[in-house]
Parts: sequence; structure tokens; C-alpha cells
Amino acid sequence: MLYVIGIGPGDKRYLTLMAIEVVKNSDVVVGSRRALDLFDIEEDKKYYLTKNLREELKEIINSTKDKNINVSILSTGDPCFSGLLKTILSLGVKKEDIEVISGISSIQIAAARLKISWEDYEIITLHGREENRRKLLNLIKNNQKVIFLPSNVKEDMEYLINNGVNPGKEMIVCENLTYENERIVRDSLKNLLKMDFSYLCICILEGDK
Amino acid sequence: MLYVIGIGPGDKRYLTLMAIEVVKNSDVVVGSRRALDLFDIEEDKKYYLTKNLREELKEIINSTKDKNINVSILSTGDPCFSGLLKTILSLGVKKEDIEVISGISSIQIAAARLKISWEDYEIITLHGREENRRKLLNLIKNNQKVIFLPSNVKEDMEYLINNGVNPGKEMIVCENLTYENERIVRDSLKNLLKMDFSYLCICILEGDK
Ligand SMILES: C[S@@+](CC[C@H](N)C(=O)[O-])C[C@H]1O[C@@H](n2cnc3c(N)ncnc32)[C@H](O)[C@@H]1O
Ligand SMILES: C[S@@+](CC[C@H](N)C(=O)[O-])C[C@H]1O[C@@H](n2cnc3c(N)ncnc32)[C@H](O)[C@@H]1O
Repeated sequence: MLYVIGIGPGDKRYLTLMAIEVVKNSDVVVGSRRALDLFDIEEDKKYYLTKNLREELKEIINSTKDKNINVSILSTGDPCFSGLLKTILSLGVKKEDIEVISGISSIQIAAARLKISWEDYEIITLHGREENRRKLLNLIKNNQKVIFLPSNVKEDMEYLINNGVNPGKEMIVCENLTYENERIVRDSLKNLLKMDFSYLCICILEGDK
Repeated sequence: MLYVIGIGPGDKRYLTLMAIEVVKNSDVVVGSRRALDLFDIEEDKKYYLTKNLREELKEIINSTKDKNINVSILSTGDPCFSGLLKTILSLGVKKEDIEVISGISSIQIAAARLKISWEDYEIITLHGREENRRKLLNLIKNNQKVIFLPSNVKEDMEYLINNGVNPGKEMIVCENLTYENERIVRDSLKNLLKMDFSYLCICILEGDK
């Protein structure tokens, strides 16, 4: 069986017992170094993903598929939110041939930190989908509450300002959630533009709707 | 400190290590019998919630607040999704006085079972918010992909049909997720209306957008 396993936002303590159990019973475990490091796995079962994510996934899926073994692919956050599930399906793997284990999404940790309820927000991802920037722009102009996964925080903010959003508009950036260097900044777009952010960010705008 | 802890969809294996750790270090743990049963807690630390959720929460929060002890309130799924966080804030508890531990939401399990990515869906809750029915209706008429928490599956379907949705329209009902009696049914609204469902359901409509 091929398992796609959510490993949560980064801190080991957000692993579920289910993720730990399934990984333990797997013959091959595939993931980034950071993901693999969260588990206690024998070295010879590990398969490190490096740069060519799609190619490497394709190779490992094809080379294990008729072998009647358990293969686990580790995905950050929840595999069903802007995650590896989509990548794997796009490689032609059939839905009935995989099992998905949910994980805590970075969106949820952002909501937990800010003590907000995410059913009140429009959730949108720009990650690998820059065409969603226009949708984001419309939501903000319409003063809706939005949580978004940036493609690049700086460039996304520049896009918004260049397209008419008030530079004084406040945004919250939640960076490196659950890591030691976690940082949550609330400021105007104008001021946020002067700061540097890592690629692990969730952004929140509080509309008035 | 007051902790609001997500316990996931029901099956113990969806607990996070963090939830287990925080509960272990708590002096009082508050929750439904089903929630409390997921953990290994000494009987004298347990406080069972029964019927008057708001009243009981208010009482326990007030009676423990100046005591410098750790109180954990257990919430199904993710407290930040249509969950207890909102209830607790509505009782006047200040955001800075609580800490929220995310849990796996029933929405995520539904997505995992169907192998869909929830960023592609409009997510809407009718739970305690029947005024959202109109919003749901518009999304469906507009052929959008929707995941919704029903207020009452049967009544919600009747509302949709009475307001012009084609009774032949297909919907997926995910019932009692992660419990032994989990059931996933995909059928027309017309046929689904003939079945009985428990109150633990997530509904999904695949639009063509
Ligand atoms: C490919 S997406 C994967 C999202 C993941 N499936 C989830 O549910 O969180 C990667 C993006 O998720 C967000 N992200 C993941 N982990 C994060 C963290 N620990 N802190 C902040 N953002 C994070 C960032 O926006 C990052 O660019
Ligand atoms: C008050 S809401 C709480 C939602 C919870 N915070 C979450 O994130 O799943 C209760 C509703 O969640 C849904 N739900 C909770 N657990 C479920 C399960 N195991 N299976 C299906 N639906 C569930 C049902 O729609 C139920 O009426």
C-alpha cells in the first residue's frame, strides 16, 4: 500500500499517533531530510527526496508498486491542503491505490496562534498558483477576512499595493510556525515590505466582513 | 493556563503527541465522556461536560481562573474550526489567557477519504448557523465545489431541493468518520433523502468549477 502521511507543521509534537504507527509499519519511508528526522526509522528504509520532487517520487512509486510492500510518503502539514496528495495524483497514481493520513496544517497553527476560527476566513493558496493573486486581490478589496499561503511574501505584497490596496492596510505574517525561530508580525503592508521573511509563512488579513 | 485542545475526529490514533502531553500536565481536564475516554487521566482530574455546555464551561473557567493551575478543555476536531474556541471566547475569556492546540478536523478526514484537496473547495458550516444555508444554495447553483458541515442532513437537503437544486444532483455524505460505523455514501439528493444519518456528517458536492 502507498501511504501519503501528513507530518504537521514541523514540531515533532504535532505528529499524530497514526502517522507514527503507519511509518513504523512501513518498508520504505520517503521524505525530505527534515521530515524523515521527525521519526525513528532505520537508515536503510529511508529514501531522501532532494530537488527533483516529481521525478524522484515517480521513480520510487514505480519501483515499489508491484512489490506488495508498504511505502509511506511524508508530506508537510496536511497532504490534502496544497500538499503532496495533488502531486502524487498528478503522476497518474490511482486514488484506490493510496491511503491518506491527515496531518495538522500550517493554516491550523496560524489560527491557533491568533485564536481565530478558520471557517470565518476565505482560504487561498498562491503557492505554485500565482493566478490566484487576482482572486486574493478581489477578496481584499472587498474587505473579506483572508488567510493565504504566499508564493513569495514580498512579491505578493508588492502585487497587492501595485494593484490598488492601501499600503497602510494591516496584515499578519506567521513565519516558521512551531519552529524555534517562529515569529508572528502584525503591521502595515508598507512596513512589512521592509522586512525579510523565510519561505515558511502564512499571511492573514482581517477584513471588516 | 487554560488550554483548548483539539482531539481529532474520534479515533484515538488521530491525537497529536502535543494533545497527550498537555493533558498529562493538566490539573483539570474538561470534556464530554467520549473525549475524556481517549486519554489516560486520573478520575479526580476529570470534569464531564453534559448538556448545558455554555453554563458548565463558564462555571469551570470561573472557578479555576485565579488558581494558577492548568486546565484543559477538550474540543472535537480542531478547536479553530466551528469548534469550542468560539464558544469560549464568547464567554468573555481573553485571547491572551488561553492557548490553543490544533487537532485534526473532520473536514480533513473527509478530504483524506475522498482523496481531494480542500483548498479547491468552498468550506462552509451550517452547524448552529442556518443562515448559511442561503450561501450554500448560491454556491451549489453556481456549480462550485463545496464541503459543508450540515445542521441536519435531511433538512438541509430538503431546503436545497425546495429552493431549486436538482434532486438528481449528486452529493457525498461522510458519516461517523474514523469510528467503527464510518460510512461514506455517494448518491443523488433524492436517494439520500430516503436514508437516515447520524449527527456526525460531512457533506461534499463536486461542482464543475
Ligand atoms: C507546499 S505548501 C504545503 C502546505 C502543507 N500541506 C500544510 O498543510 O501546511 C508549503 C507552504 O506551507 C506553508 N507552511 C508550511 N509549514 C509552515 C510553517 N511551519 N510555518 C509557516 N508556514 C508554513 C508555507 O506557506 C509554505 O510555503
Ligand atoms: C461543533 S462541530 C465541531 C467540528 C470540529 N471542530 C472539527 O474540526 O471537526 C460538530 C460537527 O462536526 C462534524 N464532525 C465532527 N466529528 C465528525 C466525525 N467523526 N465524522 C463526521 N463528521 C464529524 C459533524 O458535522 C458535527 O455535527
